[in-house]
Amino acid sequence: MVQASICTIGDEILIGQIVDTNSSHIASALESIGVKVSRMISFGDDRSEIISSLTAELQRNSIVIVTGGLGPTKDDITKAALAELSGSSGYVENSGQLEIIRKILHSRGLDILDTNKAQAMVPDRCEVILNRLGTAPVMVFRFDKERFGHECTLYSLPGVPFEASGALPDVIDDIRHHNSLSDIYHKSMMVYGIAESALAKRIEAWEDSLPSEMHLAYLPDPLTGVRLRLSVYGGEKSDEETRIRKEFDKLYPILGDAIYADYDTTLPEVIGDMLRNTGFTVSAAESCTGGTISQLLTSVPGASEYYLGSVTSYANSVKENVLGVNPDTIQKYGAVSSECVAEMAEGVRKITGSTFSVATSGIAGPGGGSEEKPVGLVWVGISSPQGTRTVSFRYSNDRKRNIERFASSALNELRKEIQKFINN
Amino acid sequence: MVQASICTIGDEILIGQIVDTNSSHIASALESIGVKVSRMISFGDDRSEIISSLTAELQRNSIVIVTGGLGPTKDDITKAALAELSGSSGYVENSGQLEIIRKILHSRGLDILDTNKAQAMVPDRCEVILNRLGTAPVMVFRFDKERFGHECTLYSLPGVPFEASGALPDVIDDIRHHNSLSDIYHKSMMVYGIAESALAKRIEAWEDSLPSEMHLAYLPDPLTGVRLRLSVYGGEKSDEETRIRKEFDKLYPILGDAIYADYDTTLPEVIGDMLRNTGFTVSAAESCTGGTISQLLTSVPGASEYYLGSVTSYANSVKENVLGVNPDTIQKYGAVSSECVAEMAEGVRKITGSTFSVATSGIAGPGGGSEEKPVGLVWVGISSPQGTRTVSFRYSNDRKRNIERFASSALNELRKEIQKFINN
Repeated sequence: MVQASICTIGDEILIGQIVDTNSSHIASALESIGVKVSRMISFGDDRSEIISSLTAELQRNSIVIVTGGLGPTKDDITKAALAELSGSSGYVENSGQLEIIRKILHSRGLDILDTNKAQAMVPDRCEVILNRLGTAPVMVFRFDKERFGHECTLYSLPGVPFEASGALPDVIDDIRHHNSLSDIYHKSMMVYGIAESALAKRIEAWEDSLPSEMHLAYLPDPLTGVRLRLSVYGGEKSDEETRIRKEFDKLYPILGDAIYADYDTTLPEVIGDMLRNTGFTVSAAESCTGGTISQLLTSVPGASEYYLGSVTSYANSVKENVLGVNPDTIQKYGAVSSECVAEMAEGVRKITGSTFSVATSGIAGPGGGSEEKPVGLVWVGISSPQGTRTVSFRYSNDRKRNIERFASSALNELRKEIQKFINN
Repeated sequence: MVQASICTIGDEILIGQIVDTNSSHIASALESIGVKVSRMISFGDDRSEIISSLTAELQRNSIVIVTGGLGPTKDDITKAALAELSGSSGYVENSGQLEIIRKILHSRGLDILDTNKAQAMVPDRCEVILNRLGTAPVMVFRFDKERFGHECTLYSLPGVPFEASGALPDVIDDIRHHNSLSDIYHKSMMVYGIAESALAKRIEAWEDSLPSEMHLAYLPDPLTGVRLRLSVYGGEKSDEETRIRKEFDKLYPILGDAIYADYDTTLPEVIGDMLRNTGFTVSAAESCTGGTISQLLTSVPGASEYYLGSVTSYANSVKENVLGVNPDTIQKYGAVSSECVAEMAEGVRKITGSTFSVATSGIAGPGGGSEEKPVGLVWVGISSPQGTRTVSFRYSNDRKRNIERFASSALNELRKEIQKFINN
C-alpha cells in the first residue's frame, strides 16, 4: 500500500497561532484514492530542521506532501531547504506562475512587488504545478531510489488553506498517474441526537457482526452529530459498495430517524436538498445561537433558493418589535421558554412568509443561568403549515460548544419536521 | 530551554475527518510559559506505532503532551500502549474521576455504562489530574533519566477539544511546578485592511531596524487581519515589555487606523469593549454574510449588553418587508449596491433602535456574478447618529473565504465608525 506523510512548516503553527486545517483536507483526499497517511508532522521555519525532518519522512514514505513556509514575507526559508534537499543548482523563473501572480495582484488593484516576483522562482530540479488561486506555485520533486532508498516524491504546496485546497486536485491527479493504487471504498451514515458512547452501546451487536475486513469508525462532531464510516480495501467497486450498504441498512431498525443520511453530508445540506426538491422555504429566529443557524444554512451554495432570511433577536425589544412576541409572554415565562420560542418561530415565519421556520432561545453561558434555567438549556421552536411545536435540550457549560450544539439540534428538529411534512 | 512535543493519536485525524485543534491550543499555552514546541505529530490508533512514536518523542523532548485515543468507543488502545510504555503492572480505578463521570452522565439524564466506568481505570504508574468537563482523566507519567536518557514527563489528555482545553491549565501548572522555565515576552499588534505582502513592504524599514534579539512574526487570518507579534526571551518582564511597546509605538505613524489594537484580540472584542464602555448599541442587516457578522459579534460573552439583534435578509422580500428597503432601489440599482446597503443599514437601525448598524450585500459565489458586479464584490453600509456611509470591497472566488472577509471588513468599518464617533 502506498504510504504518505503530510508535513506542515511554520513557527506560527508551533506557537499555536494558527490551526493547521490543510493536513486534514490533504489526508481526506489521499485516503479517498487509497493512499495511507502514516503520520502528520509540523515543524518550524528552520533550514536544518526542515531538511532533517523531510529526509526522515522521505525515507519512510513514497509520498511526502508539504504545506507552508512559502509566504511572501521574509522569514520563509522552505524554498532554500528544498533546493538543498533536491540538489538543485539554482533557481529558475516559472513564467506561468509569474503571469498568474500579475493577474491576481492586478485584479486586486495592486502593483507587483519584488517579494511577489520572487514567488515565481523555483529550484531548478522541480516540476511546477501552477497555483491558479495564489502566488506560490506547487513544486514537485521526484527522487530516484538512490536518494532515499526507494522512489519517492515530495510535493510542496502553499500554506494558505484555500490555495492548498485549490491546488490539491492537480496533486492528487499527479499521484494517481505515478502510482498504482489499490482501491478503497467508504460509505458514511450520518446520525444525529445520540451521544457517541450511547450509540456504541446501541449498535454493539451490529458492530460485532461486521465482516472482519470491514473497518468501522466513529466520527463525532458537534455540528454534524456522529458520522459512522465503514471502509473496505480492494475488490470490485460495485460489489464492495453493495456489501457496505447492506450492513448499513441493518441500522435503520435500530436507529430510526436519528439517521439523517446514508452518505457523507451535513444537516444544512440535507435540509437544503429537501427544500430545493420541494420548493418549500425556511426562515429562522435566533436568540442564543446569535446567527449561527443562519450562517450554517447559508454556508451551502445556492441557499438563496430556499432560505429567505432570519431575525437574530438578542434583545427582548427585538423579539417584541420585530418578531411580534407578546411582551406578556416574556414577562410571564421568560425569554428562554417554550412559549417564547413558539412565538418567535411563528413571528419570523409570518414576516418572511416562509413555509417552515426554526427558532432558538437558551442560555449559552458562561454566566446567566439559574437553578430552574441552567446554562446549557435551549428551547427550540419549529413552525410549519401544520402548526408549531417546541422541544428543549440541555448541554454543557461551554459557550462556543453550546452555541454549536444549540444550532445543530435546532437544525436537526427542522430536518425531522420537513421530512415528516414531505412524507405526509 | 525546555522543549516539548505535542502528539495526537487517532485514525480519524489521519483520514482527514477531524481537524486537530487541540495541538494549537496546547502550543499556545506552552509558548506563553516559555516552553518551546519542537514539533507536532499525529499518528494512528495502533499500539506499536503509539509506543515507537512516543518513545522517539520522549527521547528528544522533556515534555510530551498527547491528546486523543481515549474515547469511550472500543477502537481506542492508547491506554494499553501507555501502560506498556510506562511499565505499569495493571490498572487502578480513580475514584475521583469515576465520581465526575457519574455526575456528568446524571446531569444529561444518562445511566453509567461499562464503557464509561472503564474510563476511570488508569495504568498504576500514572498520576491523575482530574478532568472535570469530561469522562477521560488526564494521565501524567514521570520518567527518570534511566528510561529515555533524560528526565521527561508524558501528559495524556482527552481528545475532545473542550475537555482538552479545560484540562490544560492544570497541566500547565504542573509543568511550571516541575521545570525551571526561562521567561518569554510577547506583544501583538492587530492590523486590518492591509494584505500581508503589502504590510511587509510598508514596515520593511521598521522591521530591519528591530534589535536582533527581537523576533517578529506575521500571523494573517481572514477574520482578524494580520497579527504582528514581537517576542523576546529572558530579561525583566517590565523592561522587556516596555522595549517591545516602544518598537510597536513607531508603527502608528506608518499604519494609522489600520491598527485596531496593541494587544492580542479580535474585531468583535474591540467593538464590544468600545460599546460596553460607552453604552452604545449595535445591530446588523446581513445579506451575503448570512448571519456571520451576527455570529461573530455574539461569540463574545456578554454581547447582549450592546448587541440588540440583526436581520439576515437573503430574499429581497425580506429586505423590503422587514428592513423597509424601497423596492424601487432594488429595481434600479440591484440588491448589491451602495443604495440598497445604505437602506438596509438604516432600516435595521430603525427597527432595533440601535446606536450603530452595519449592513452587507455582496456576491459570495461560487456563481451569480456579472461583469459589472463580479463574484467577490461586497457593499458595506454603516449607519450611525451622524449619518450613513457605504464602501465596497473586492475579494476572491472562494465562497467560504469571501463570507469571512466580507464579514470582517464590515466589522472593521463598524469599528472605525464607532472610534470616530467616540473621538468626536
